Amino acid sequence: MYFASDNSSPVPPQILDALVHANHGYAMPYGADTIMDSVRNKIREVFEAPEAAVYLVPTGTAANVLALSCLCPPWATIYCHQNAHIEEDECGAPEFYTGGAKLTLVGGDDAKMSPEALKQAISFTARAGVHNVQKGAVSITNITENGALYSADEVRALCDIAKASDLPVHMDGARFANAVVGAGCTPAEMTWKAGVDVLSFGGTKNGLMGVEAVVLFDPKRAWEFELRRKRGGHLFSKHRYLSAQMDAYLEDDLWLKLATRANDAAARLSKGILTIEGASLLHPTDGNAVFARWPREGHRRAQDAGAVYYLWPMNQSLEGPDEEPLSARLVCSWCTSSADVEKFLELIRG
Amino acid sequence: MYFASDNSSPVPPQILDALVHANHGYAMPYGADTIMDSVRNKIREVFEAPEAAVYLVPTGTAANVLALSCLCPPWATIYCHQNAHIEEDECGAPEFYTGGAKLTLVGGDDAKMSPEALKQAISFTARAGVHNVQKGAVSITNITENGALYSADEVRALCDIAKASDLPVHMDGARFANAVVGAGCTPAEMTWKAGVDVLSFGGTKNGLMGVEAVVLFDPKRAWEFELRRKRGGHLFSKHRYLSAQMDAYLEDDLWLKLATRANDAAARLSKGILTIEGASLLHPTDGNAVFARWPREGHRRAQDAGAVYYLWPMNQSLEGPDEEPLSARLVCSWCTSSADVEKFLELIRG
Amino acid sequence: MYFASDNSSPVPPQILDALVHANHGYAMPYGADTIMDSVRNKIREVFEAPEAAVYLVPTGTAANVLALSCLCPPWATIYCHQNAHIEEDECGAPEFYTGGAKLTLVGGDDAKMSPEALKQAISFTARAGVHNVQKGAVSITNITENGALYSADEVRALCDIAKASDLPVHMDGARFANAVVGAGCTPAEMTWKAGVDVLSFGGTKNGLMGVEAVVLFDPKRAWEFELRRKRGGHLFSKHRYLSAQMDAYLEDDLWLKLATRANDAAARLSKGILTIEGASLLHPTDGNAVFARWPREGHRRAQDAGAVYYLWPMNQSLEGPDEEPLSARLVCSWCTSSADVEKFLELIRG
Amino acid sequence: MYFASDNSSPVPPQILDALVHANHGYAMPYGADTIMDSVRNKIREVFEAPEAAVYLVPTGTAANVLALSCLCPPWATIYCHQNAHIEEDECGAPEFYTGGAKLTLVGGDDAKMSPEALKQAISFTARAGVHNVQKGAVSITNITENGALYSADEVRALCDIAKASDLPVHMDGARFANAVVGAGCTPAEMTWKAGVDVLSFGGTKNGLMGVEAVVLFDPKRAWEFELRRKRGGHLFSKHRYLSAQMDAYLEDDLWLKLATRANDAAARLSKGILTIEGASLLHPTDGNAVFARWPREGHRRAQDAGAVYYLWPMNQSLEGPDEEPLSARLVCSWCTSSADVEKFLELIRG
Repeated sequence: MYFASDNSSPVPPQILDALVHANHGYAMPYGADTIMDSVRNKIREVFEAPEAAVYLVPTGTAANVLALSCLCPPWATIYCHQNAHIEEDECGAPEFYTGGAKLTLVGGDDAKMSPEALKQAISFTARAGVHNVQKGAVSITNITENGALYSADEVRALCDIAKASDLPVHMDGARFANAVVGAGCTPAEMTWKAGVDVLSFGGTKNGLMGVEAVVLFDPKRAWEFELRRKRGGHLFSKHRYLSAQMDAYLEDDLWLKLATRANDAAARLSKGILTIEGASLLHPTDGNAVFARWPREGHRRAQDAGAVYYLWPMNQSLEGPDEEPLSARLVCSWCTSSADVEKFLELIRG
Repeated sequence: MYFASDNSSPVPPQILDALVHANHGYAMPYGADTIMDSVRNKIREVFEAPEAAVYLVPTGTAANVLALSCLCPPWATIYCHQNAHIEEDECGAPEFYTGGAKLTLVGGDDAKMSPEALKQAISFTARAGVHNVQKGAVSITNITENGALYSADEVRALCDIAKASDLPVHMDGARFANAVVGAGCTPAEMTWKAGVDVLSFGGTKNGLMGVEAVVLFDPKRAWEFELRRKRGGHLFSKHRYLSAQMDAYLEDDLWLKLATRANDAAARLSKGILTIEGASLLHPTDGNAVFARWPREGHRRAQDAGAVYYLWPMNQSLEGPDEEPLSARLVCSWCTSSADVEKFLELIRG
Repeated sequence: MYFASDNSSPVPPQILDALVHANHGYAMPYGADTIMDSVRNKIREVFEAPEAAVYLVPTGTAANVLALSCLCPPWATIYCHQNAHIEEDECGAPEFYTGGAKLTLVGGDDAKMSPEALKQAISFTARAGVHNVQKGAVSITNITENGALYSADEVRALCDIAKASDLPVHMDGARFANAVVGAGCTPAEMTWKAGVDVLSFGGTKNGLMGVEAVVLFDPKRAWEFELRRKRGGHLFSKHRYLSAQMDAYLEDDLWLKLATRANDAAARLSKGILTIEGASLLHPTDGNAVFARWPREGHRRAQDAGAVYYLWPMNQSLEGPDEEPLSARLVCSWCTSSADVEKFLELIRG
Repeated sequence: MYFASDNSSPVPPQILDALVHANHGYAMPYGADTIMDSVRNKIREVFEAPEAAVYLVPTGTAANVLALSCLCPPWATIYCHQNAHIEEDECGAPEFYTGGAKLTLVGGDDAKMSPEALKQAISFTARAGVHNVQKGAVSITNITENGALYSADEVRALCDIAKASDLPVHMDGARFANAVVGAGCTPAEMTWKAGVDVLSFGGTKNGLMGVEAVVLFDPKRAWEFELRRKRGGHLFSKHRYLSAQMDAYLEDDLWLKLATRANDAAARLSKGILTIEGASLLHPTDGNAVFARWPREGHRRAQDAGAVYYLWPMNQSLEGPDEEPLSARLVCSWCTSSADVEKFLELIRG
């Protein structure tokens, strides 16, 4: 019963097989391996974007900040939700990679920027000209850090606001697979068709060892991206081992199948929790994460039985009235079993 | 017959096995996995350094520049050989990570800094006080980019010069295993006993998929290193897959065995080349790389037969007098076979 | 009737005299001029801080960001009010000079950080360890951007909170003279005795051409400051012309006399405005700036007669009901005449 | 007898008069003062460049590094002479402002880059593609740090090489007036007509208190420059005091008259030294600096009599054989008197 994070799960056998398969003889280094050609083609096909530039990096932080540094100059600001991963969980990596850009925090429920708040934040920027940081870029996380989904239409609404000020749009898709599965739209509809310029296409949380793709739908910044990746120390010599994982991930829709399993597990969990008296959701369960509250006694039983997950916020105490509801974050992954979900629900139901 | 680079070779079966073995259930993320505890202990033991802080990163560039950024402030300079990898092949990553430090280039044969040249470069620095960049750190590559070895005594001579100016010393050990095998000394003798403060302990060129350790013999900068690693996007969530590789690499001296194979292959190659009339070495063959020249006709035969390696410098032509010697760089790896070496020697001998 | 900003006023005759006086023969460059010795001594005396390191720079932005870059590492955050000059009006200079630190915005009335909000912001920081930016430094503007004063006790309350987390404290004293005059305390009481580590001691807004001092009460970072100043392009070769201005500014309490004139003018203005029916203050008039609202018709009369000042916020319209009050910012300087104040009050009174 | 540096001299009376004249009433801040309009017009006229963007900053370092940061991205390199001020005397400010660009050092006599060496340095750059820093910009100092002059033709030769690789060209004109006077060409011929894109137009060494202009002949990067200037802390609120100085400097060719005086003094000094037995020049005396050697006894007499100048290099000793020649740098300024020159020559002649 492990619901602490999807970043702690193992990888599916296809990924190991791909590594074994790739491990023969010599391969051209630094992204010139032939498997990368396959990856590039598959991503272009999946996204209906035959011109897109595609690169692999090892972490989600690297994907996000390399992308943003190509979009936002040092004297500008990146609009993102106040709970965005780039704001809260990257130790200032965006500031480092951009050369000191700011992040302007935008409000909205469920870690989704509200269009009105974004519009206002942009219009507020640089009102005193050279004295202020300038308008830079917009970054949207989908699925959000609170497990909620922007529909393709909602993404487009934000992109339209950005475009009205000539701002490029980045999507942090650390859980992009869960978003696409949740939304039931195509990858293209969720991204460039809605106005997204660059996507961090996550693999790690959804079953890879540490591989993310960056997809630049407009390839004009491709060379700059390559230089920044090298300069950031993110260009792999034995690149084939990144390529092999991503290639297997894209084969036969594996990435979608894995995300479907995670989303389904979360949906069952969410539904089950809501049957408990006194339980409720903090955020909608649109993907693979459940933010919910239920009575303390249920938490105690689950944790006594070895369930692993975070109280949310973390500083709550298991000591206290039995009936009082405590909030928690539960994250499912491709390998969350039905048995674990059922067992967990039984425990918290009591 | 592949001698282009050790960074194009596959990984040995132990590494794949370790990945398979690590791929069970959930693991604590971000370096808190239990395999990392094993890695830390093994490295401390190998280096006789029970206090050392040990971290894993995916690339050699990341290892070098994260280490250097902990040692050298933005307004100072890093002394390195003019052919050092950090100067020539990292696209300015040291400047990026340090916040704009300089590299002061030091001469010497075989890409080894001469003590006299280092002493002079340091004494020349900051003669005009605040107007100049200040003395920062010394970075030594062992085995060097030209395949030559600093003995432990030679390392100590450079470190003594550095210490006389209170400068910390970094060692770029992308091919540290080859150095230790070549020198026949202990890892401790080659590093902290000689005065090295931080080591980039290479794994990738010697058989891993993309794993390097950074060893801080004095752990006082450990927390700063952790923050810089995170901020650089080099902290892996599914860290166990780095740990597993490094753990297998250190098990039963695998890292030394792999390097021994590579060094032995290079020695045979070097020795064989010297039996050719008109052949000579550009640099001593101390590790796994051979820098040599031999008549053009030999190059033609080898390349016609499919041998892959770099002419050195690259812009030489296969067209021209048969007898004229052309220079080349040949790099062996853990998987270079005796058969390949013999076949190659036959071809170039004619 | 010019109330747009104190940064548009001329300099008093003593400053020009000092330049003329300094303009004889050769002088040692780069801060080694003898007038700087006098400046240093005077500042140490004024602040009862015989060990303080004292430096001159040409702008308030330079003073603030050089100071902050000595206090806050790239991976940390600076706590400041959401209306702080370093957040709103320096185009990201703090981010640039610190190498990418963040600013964490703290609330409170009148652009004064509330102790409770500061405490909460600090305690919220770095809860997830290495994933977050770390606690860096606190920056307090006195007099604030809204013209309000922190008393020495209020400064100490914020410093105590900072010190409880081992955080250094910077004071943006662009209008420090107005603060000291307003508070009726000593410069020492307002700064190091309350816990301030580094002060930007403003001169420009209070009568100099472009000279600010940075006072490091603890000189241990003096050399780093000198290097950062040089590297930022802020070390003057003909430094005597900065020294001469600052020296005259400190002579015979000129700096306090000038600020007294500005504060007095603002007090009269503020008092006069409050006699108008429908008028009120937005913020207390503690120094040389008045934030007030009064009926639109008064604004019209004043502006028709050539009065220069900012509506606050700027985007209000002079078209509309006569009685409706509009807000404005009026800044007095050392050279604001009583006649101008009286004339202005007559106009807006009608 | 002060020949240590032109940066230690006073300012001519016209400059003080201009400050007095500018010191009336309120003026628009941040470069919107009306005197700046006059400065802009005069510089455009002097340079026959009606479209040029013109900005003022307080130091030569600021001028150089703000200009270069607009021309060279972080992952590229700036070609300059190995004795260039930006390499030797700015404490890494170019690296700081560019976000970590490199400086590639080019050889040549008298601190002048040789065209052949520049060509080779450029062609050597980025041979390994993404692994190397890229070609960035060329920076030429005229008059050089060794007092030598590039003719307009020599500047064009370097610019042609730069343009062949699409590289922009910066000129460090800290002593531009001395160069134009020395060359007897027009400012336009020395700059944009020869291919220079951005000029640091020095004022400080030639008679101002601390004012330099940056002239962007192509205004397309003007806004970026303004943002970088603000962000660097170099935008003056009371900008009129910079404008007033520069305006007076350009009035009635004052700048050329001042430089003519300095150059003439240096010419007399140089000529006089060469009449001494055993004396010779290290570099040609093309502007206001003399690099020469003459017998030690002459140095002793001069220094005993209070002459101030630098032995060059600095670490030579006045103790030793009388006849042995020692090298020195002597810099004249607009206020070097004939009497001082004559007296000095008498002393060293003996």
